[in-house]
Amino acid sequence: MVRWEPNSRGRLQEAALALYSERGFDQTTAAEIAARAGLTERTFFRHFTDKREVLFGGFEILRELIVSSVAAAPAEDTPLEAVARGLDAAATLLGEGRRDLTAQRQAVIATNPELRERELAKLADYAAAIAATLHQRGVGELQATLAAEVAMSVFRVAIERWANSDDDRSLPVIMKASLAELRALTTAS
Amino acid sequence: MVRWEPNSRGRLQEAALALYSERGFDQTTAAEIAARAGLTERTFFRHFTDKREVLFGGFEILRELIVSSVAAAPAEDTPLEAVARGLDAAATLLGEGRRDLTAQRQAVIATNPELRERELAKLADYAAAIAATLHQRGVGELQATLAAEVAMSVFRVAIERWANSDDDRSLPVIMKASLAELRALTTAS
Repeated sequence: MVRWEPNSRGRLQEAALALYSERGFDQTTAAEIAARAGLTERTFFRHFTDKREVLFGGFEILRELIVSSVAAAPAEDTPLEAVARGLDAAATLLGEGRRDLTAQRQAVIATNPELRERELAKLADYAAAIAATLHQRGVGELQATLAAEVAMSVFRVAIERWANSDDDRSLPVIMKASLAELRALTTAS
Repeated sequence: MVRWEPNSRGRLQEAALALYSERGFDQTTAAEIAARAGLTERTFFRHFTDKREVLFGGFEILRELIVSSVAAAPAEDTPLEAVARGLDAAATLLGEGRRDLTAQRQAVIATNPELRERELAKLADYAAAIAATLHQRGVGELQATLAAEVAMSVFRVAIERWANSDDDRSLPVIMKASLAELRALTTAS
């Protein structure tokens, strides 16, 4: 019989991030995460395949969300406008999460080379998916790649700002502001 | 006594890339690279610490070149203009290399997840160094990060185009054109 535990996924995430911050990612086991959350190891593995997935779970869902938003953009959108819709959808979803947990996640990843490389690979994967989607919309391959790469730069900068600065605006607002800053940056003569 | 071999470094690089392409990176040893180049394993290790360095050697030199070019930009340069000087310096140096070897290098890296992550980490390192340099020039931290990230996007796209497309222009010219495309992308309404 499976006992139902309210919000066990969220509790496991919170416990995992706390332990990764305190002891380091490599020094933390799934059993310890479960214990800290007051749950069993079995419950942990019902929610996550391993302790890395606590940090990178939801990756495919977010990519699909971004890609489908870009694909659904009106035909008259410029590449960057289409991409902005993807970023807005991502920001809306991620912005429902807790800022402090995102900040903790970023800090854990920043101190571990293997996790950092995994994070970079994830963003590169997003960029490739966006570029392919733009290309399907008739955007030239290189322009599509450039737009997608630039979008990921804005994405990273916005999340970083949201999680770690005193900027109290919502993530979608910060995302829009970061995109505006990109435009300002490239139009300044 | 060390026998002098003309251009042994270049010969080793060429042999290594040929073997990585034929057999895969993981299946190639330093001894095999040396043999293919008609040199000894000892000579290999005089030039490279390991077989990965054949792909990633020169990394610090390039970073220093980019950073010093950005740092030396006139005070009145916008962040993107300063960054463009760094990209131009990098393109001039890299553009002296052979296009076919660069294409081979890209292909080898693309097929190996570990090498791909290493490449991404290298580019992230360039971006961080550029951002720090812009920040020292008085550019706000987030704007500096954005400019640096965008610069790396242009850098990647330009090298990709130079190495793998029919575009026969020199790398510095392609780099400038890619930067112009970025401006066009972000100013299109």
